[in-house]
Amino acid sequence: MSAVHEIEDRLIDIAGAVNVDTGADINQDATHDEALTGVPVRPRAVVRPGSTEEVAAIVRAAASEGVPLTARGSGTGLSGGCTPVEAGVVVSFERMNRILEIDTANHVAVVEPGLTLAELDAALIPFGLVYPVFPGEQSASLGGNVATNAGGMRAVKYGVTRHHVLGITAVLGTGEVVTSGGKFVKSTSGYDLTQLVIGSEGTLALVTRATLRLHPRPEFSATLLAPYASLDEIAAAVPHVVASGVGPLMVEYIDLVSMAGITANAGIDLGVPDEVQARALAYLVIVLESHHTERLEEDTQVLAEMLAALGALDVYVLPDQSGTDLVGARERAFWAAKANGADDIVDVVVPRAAIPDMLATVNGLAADTSSLVVGCGHAGDGNVHLSVWQSDPEVRHRLLHDIIAAGVSLGGAVSGEHGIGTEKRSYLADLEDPVKLDLLRRIKSAFDPVGILNPGTIFDPVAAHAEVR
Amino acid sequence: MSAVHEIEDRLIDIAGAVNVDTGADINQDATHDEALTGVPVRPRAVVRPGSTEEVAAIVRAAASEGVPLTARGSGTGLSGGCTPVEAGVVVSFERMNRILEIDTANHVAVVEPGLTLAELDAALIPFGLVYPVFPGEQSASLGGNVATNAGGMRAVKYGVTRHHVLGITAVLGTGEVVTSGGKFVKSTSGYDLTQLVIGSEGTLALVTRATLRLHPRPEFSATLLAPYASLDEIAAAVPHVVASGVGPLMVEYIDLVSMAGITANAGIDLGVPDEVQARALAYLVIVLESHHTERLEEDTQVLAEMLAALGALDVYVLPDQSGTDLVGARERAFWAAKANGADDIVDVVVPRAAIPDMLATVNGLAADTSSLVVGCGHAGDGNVHLSVWQSDPEVRHRLLHDIIAAGVSLGGAVSGEHGIGTEKRSYLADLEDPVKLDLLRRIKSAFDPVGILNPGTIFDPVAAHAEVR
Repeated sequence: MSAVHEIEDRLIDIAGAVNVDTGADINQDATHDEALTGVPVRPRAVVRPGSTEEVAAIVRAAASEGVPLTARGSGTGLSGGCTPVEAGVVVSFERMNRILEIDTANHVAVVEPGLTLAELDAALIPFGLVYPVFPGEQSASLGGNVATNAGGMRAVKYGVTRHHVLGITAVLGTGEVVTSGGKFVKSTSGYDLTQLVIGSEGTLALVTRATLRLHPRPEFSATLLAPYASLDEIAAAVPHVVASGVGPLMVEYIDLVSMAGITANAGIDLGVPDEVQARALAYLVIVLESHHTERLEEDTQVLAEMLAALGALDVYVLPDQSGTDLVGARERAFWAAKANGADDIVDVVVPRAAIPDMLATVNGLAADTSSLVVGCGHAGDGNVHLSVWQSDPEVRHRLLHDIIAAGVSLGGAVSGEHGIGTEKRSYLADLEDPVKLDLLRRIKSAFDPVGILNPGTIFDPVAAHAEVR
Repeated sequence: MSAVHEIEDRLIDIAGAVNVDTGADINQDATHDEALTGVPVRPRAVVRPGSTEEVAAIVRAAASEGVPLTARGSGTGLSGGCTPVEAGVVVSFERMNRILEIDTANHVAVVEPGLTLAELDAALIPFGLVYPVFPGEQSASLGGNVATNAGGMRAVKYGVTRHHVLGITAVLGTGEVVTSGGKFVKSTSGYDLTQLVIGSEGTLALVTRATLRLHPRPEFSATLLAPYASLDEIAAAVPHVVASGVGPLMVEYIDLVSMAGITANAGIDLGVPDEVQARALAYLVIVLESHHTERLEEDTQVLAEMLAALGALDVYVLPDQSGTDLVGARERAFWAAKANGADDIVDVVVPRAAIPDMLATVNGLAADTSSLVVGCGHAGDGNVHLSVWQSDPEVRHRLLHDIIAAGVSLGGAVSGEHGIGTEKRSYLADLEDPVKLDLLRRIKSAFDPVGILNPGTIFDPVAAHAEVR
């Protein structure tokens, strides 16, 4: 690193003193995200740029000084992806939080990265439109969603962030600004930089603007709750649900312990009789939505009969408020686990039909290590969310390694939607093909030749450093 | 280039003499695709590998000798993307054409790149499933579809190839084999190599296997035909159609001349009365599909009334056979244009609401150069297909440049689905941001450090050569 304080002076020149914090003025919030295992790190400075031009100037200054930069949205990530480094600067997008355009002719919104999902949703309701990616935390920023390719419960119908971001403006690690994509769904005009930057966790470029695809907002929804005596039966039912053409909005499973935790945490009673609860080992939750109330009723009936025929102990069509409460409680499953002292979480993705095999392996690993591992997940798309209680860090690390390795060996991947961040990078390094990791590092170098963008995220920082120097 | 004939000997060692053609044995088909402006080039050899391992061995041999490789599927491309180079080798995937798996539990198919869309579709029908990307040429290969991110008329409902390829096995320009993605829709575990390779036109890697997302196959469909007195009214109607929630399968516009050409070419009569035809300057074609015949009828009725209220001169719900015939004829629009002597084609994409502005500019440019430029396109996603009659090559080049430049300045891109290939690369070089092109070249070097994969496609070959040496 070059001259002490020089970068701070340059940041002040670029963004104004009021938008640069240093030393004791740095808010504790900027030192961490929500990862359970994260260790807060105080950065050298926090800067709050107001425009793409200011971001580009900040990156140019940092590149010339070799100062690491970590982008930050709302800080709601679960893998440490916005953890600063000590010698580095946090680029906080809290001032760049505008909706620049809601374009009803093309059904897109153009937004800045600091905008929250809640703010966007509120703005779209009057137009009868929806940005359908609901990762479960509405205070999350769009920039953070792009960085992690955020998913959530509605992915089984709508896909994830990468299916709804049509274009970006982004600042490379060189300080150069590029635009990619636009107000259109299809293009074959050179490599798709939009898709490459989505999910890259701030390591390739800083996104300063995104064009989002919007959908008509269905008015009506219904929630079905089906207790099952085994998870195998839930997994066997899911392909039939999808093949039926009802196009479910959500297809979730919740295990026994997690259902107890999330309903208790939310204070809700779903009215499942004790004798059914006593036999239920897992719950299937399906939400349907429609523009037509009578079609919704018809589909709900068909689906309820289908689930009953597919081994459900019973099927409950929840009253609107109970349905909303259950989905809301499920969205807060992480907080319920945290409140109950969970030590870590995993969000492995596997082929959806492999969920029972995956969880059987997980149960064996939990028993072998005297750990508690429970969870819920997106049964429609194979994304398994597990909370892990195991206080010994070494045992826990080995357990997580083995859980993730089991998912990978079933044809899955380390993370479905949380990302690798700092907290899961050792598992990626252990389990991913070294040839592929080398290719990813070469791609990073193409965007960020000096290696200043979010070092330590996705890749081991030392090795990344060696690569770029 | 190193020793003459050495590469041929190595290809024979790898794939067997029966699978290597050289000299006069090379089929004329391997020298070109369907681009109207393409100049056939005889390669040094054609090799037909039988496995990923053989492809990897071929790439290693070519990399060590500096011999260019051009991947070839069915050769149905429209931009010269599989045009060989004289000193190079064509890697034809005609033997690697198997369906490896149809997985009904996870709703995916695993296929080899030489498989055609027609073969895949026939295999899926018995399962009630569909791979919903129909670019209009069913003899096209899946490998070619991945290379060009193929689109087609159903993109307004289902998206394009990149939304349905969940994973790939691919051979880098180094001969290394990587796998990416799998039987799942979501992952955030390092950069998405699947998405990066899709649409890269054989310049980053050779795809040897793809995992495709399948959907339930709706049984019922209906076709609406609405003549309009202006394209502006069609463009104004489209957002209302999409916002209504009917979820159209296709939303196409066809201009007057093109409608005459494609119906005459197909020998079909749509039964539009002469007095309506006399006033119609453009046609809107909408196809709906559903799993329920009564919902389809209801939606068709609602949509017909909506179009009538939105300025249609009349609305025709076509009998099943006429609807199928019209869609089939529209799919063959390229062949109708070719049969009528078109000199070139363009498939610019613009924000869909900009289609009228785009076509007004096109009409002006056509008049200024005494050219005929007519077309049809995907009104739902802004993809404008134009056929150009202008026999003077210099005038035509300037006209195409100005047409594409108009699309780009309206917020669009050079190609919506055909790709850049060899035939549109000069326009990309002229119109794309040089900073972005440099980044694309650096990304190519990360995959293909020696620069052997499809040189001359997307980028100018001379400059690409300079970059990688």
